Amino acid sequence: MSTRTEISSLGEFGLIDHLTQNNETKHASTLVSVGDDAAVLDHLGKQIVVTTDLLIEGVHFDLTYAPLTHLGYKSVIVNLSDVYAMNATPTQITMSIGLSNRFSVEALDEFYEGVYIACEKYNVDLVGGDTTSSTKGFIISVTAIGEVQENRVVKRDGARQGDLICVTGDLGAAYLGLLLMEREKKIFLESPSVQPDLENQDYLLRRLLKPEARKDIIDFFEEQQIMPTSMIDVSDGLSSEILHICKQSNAGCVIYEDKIPIAEESRNFAFKLGLDPTACALSGGEDYELLFTLRQEDYDKITLNEQISVIGYIKEPEEGAHIITRAEKKHALTAQGWNAFK
Amino acid sequence: MSTRTEISSLGEFGLIDHLTQNNETKHASTLVSVGDDAAVLDHLGKQIVVTTDLLIEGVHFDLTYAPLTHLGYKSVIVNLSDVYAMNATPTQITMSIGLSNRFSVEALDEFYEGVYIACEKYNVDLVGGDTTSSTKGFIISVTAIGEVQENRVVKRDGARQGDLICVTGDLGAAYLGLLLMEREKKIFLESPSVQPDLENQDYLLRRLLKPEARKDIIDFFEEQQIMPTSMIDVSDGLSSEILHICKQSNAGCVIYEDKIPIAEESRNFAFKLGLDPTACALSGGEDYELLFTLRQEDYDKITLNEQISVIGYIKEPEEGAHIITRAEKKHALTAQGWNAFK
Repeated sequence: MSTRTEISSLGEFGLIDHLTQNNETKHASTLVSVGDDAAVLDHLGKQIVVTTDLLIEGVHFDLTYAPLTHLGYKSVIVNLSDVYAMNATPTQITMSIGLSNRFSVEALDEFYEGVYIACEKYNVDLVGGDTTSSTKGFIISVTAIGEVQENRVVKRDGARQGDLICVTGDLGAAYLGLLLMEREKKIFLESPSVQPDLENQDYLLRRLLKPEARKDIIDFFEEQQIMPTSMIDVSDGLSSEILHICKQSNAGCVIYEDKIPIAEESRNFAFKLGLDPTACALSGGEDYELLFTLRQEDYDKITLNEQISVIGYIKEPEEGAHIITRAEKKHALTAQGWNAFK
Repeated sequence: MSTRTEISSLGEFGLIDHLTQNNETKHASTLVSVGDDAAVLDHLGKQIVVTTDLLIEGVHFDLTYAPLTHLGYKSVIVNLSDVYAMNATPTQITMSIGLSNRFSVEALDEFYEGVYIACEKYNVDLVGGDTTSSTKGFIISVTAIGEVQENRVVKRDGARQGDLICVTGDLGAAYLGLLLMEREKKIFLESPSVQPDLENQDYLLRRLLKPEARKDIIDFFEEQQIMPTSMIDVSDGLSSEILHICKQSNAGCVIYEDKIPIAEESRNFAFKLGLDPTACALSGGEDYELLFTLRQEDYDKITLNEQISVIGYIKEPEEGAHIITRAEKKHALTAQGWNAFK
């Protein structure tokens, strides 16, 4: 970038005006947007869902390799994913940021470019937020609001014995993308002249830096009149999410290693690092896929969608939660993925 | 405190369970609370308002003198204040926190004690949030949701020529409380053996550390069928807030120094520090009072309430925004308070 505008030259309110000058609202439910004490929304008799995430530099992201535009995009997506996981449609977000004076207005513009691209793509209005300084690093807090018709909410507690366990897309790629970036960062810090060897790992990097939320799946459910019995988004790894559903549904489960969807790119890079691809899927996290359970009689409906894999089924609570490996061994699922990372 | 429990001993989900184990919802509109991907709310045909604030240690608060319970309380209040400023009733909040490992579970319990006390007092449900680690300091992000009947929302843009400018309670005390604490902190850092001299300044300290939101005023408006033409809460100082209303209403204004409500305690302590009490009211901030405009024909209704002061009136935009001093001099209002702090 050739210019650097200090944030202090705009002031807080000037900065908010600058960042929201092209902000257009798309939803009739957005009655008052940015610029008052609060936004005003009217969802006309629908129920609303609310979710929030706090992202902190050095904990959730590393600006050494996360471009600001991607970070803006991703910080919206991770919240939309939680709204979809309730079988709801996101309609509005608020975006709060805290940042130190090492950030320029131009840097913030890059971040907001990603925010607005995500809002446009997912048809969501940015309706408010807070902009403040931080003593260290970049802090992002997003709240997403969505709407859902009565009786269409899908929670985590509805899985019943015999239900199919399904997952969308593929798992483990974001975690492997993170390992790739951490490896390259380490090499760069030791030998700054060495160019990063990203080995054409576009897929892994995209899954890490610019994930998508599964709007398409929620649309598919509506078209096919599918109502999952429980659902959660995969942010902490498949094991952790399955255990949440089992705990809140008071159920057990079994899943099959050979049914877990893992991309070829993930499998290859995992082997290169000497890691088990299944362990990456179980414990990797940040996939933002949807994990859901379904009554068996709905099986025919989902075979239409190649983005959905059936990976196991729900059992009685006393059966516990297990994975059957390719070698037909049975391991208890744990939030760390059957100890594969030990 | 005699015990210290490391947060790491509970883990993220254990910590959330611990912090929300006694969390009870009070509103029929809260259908799903903490424990799923998102909360689900049904405001039954009412409009909802949404506001959010990000509070960062070292920027917005100083744990040297802000007790954690008070901080939890205040972090809820500052958001409720924004909801009331829309003439709405807060119903739910989400609370996200980021914290470093210098905080114990017991410290967090103190913080949440304040959060729950505020929720109880203001009849608000805690319905979600996010709990994460930070690389430095304590980070708090609160989103508040409220409901309001159609046509009852009061924005910042409705002030018209001749409207009365009104403010609740008194101004400047929180800022003077901050100066008091900063003075004592400086003395303490230089001479740790000297006991703080808080001079029985209970009022100033309470206004700083444990502010209240003006629910009583919104209730009063409803009882008396008063509908302000514009409203904002006083968080950045009276000048800044009046200028927001003038800008968004495309209006000018005049206010009178001798009408600005300032507590005796504030006046005394300001004089002691050699400061102008009016300047503290104009630029001090963090009062969380309500500033609103009212049609003149509603004047009789507000005389019933001694918590409301009429401090001036709205003029044509070309007249600008001014204060008339006790010496009958006219100064332009600026967001820094007619340069009194220079």
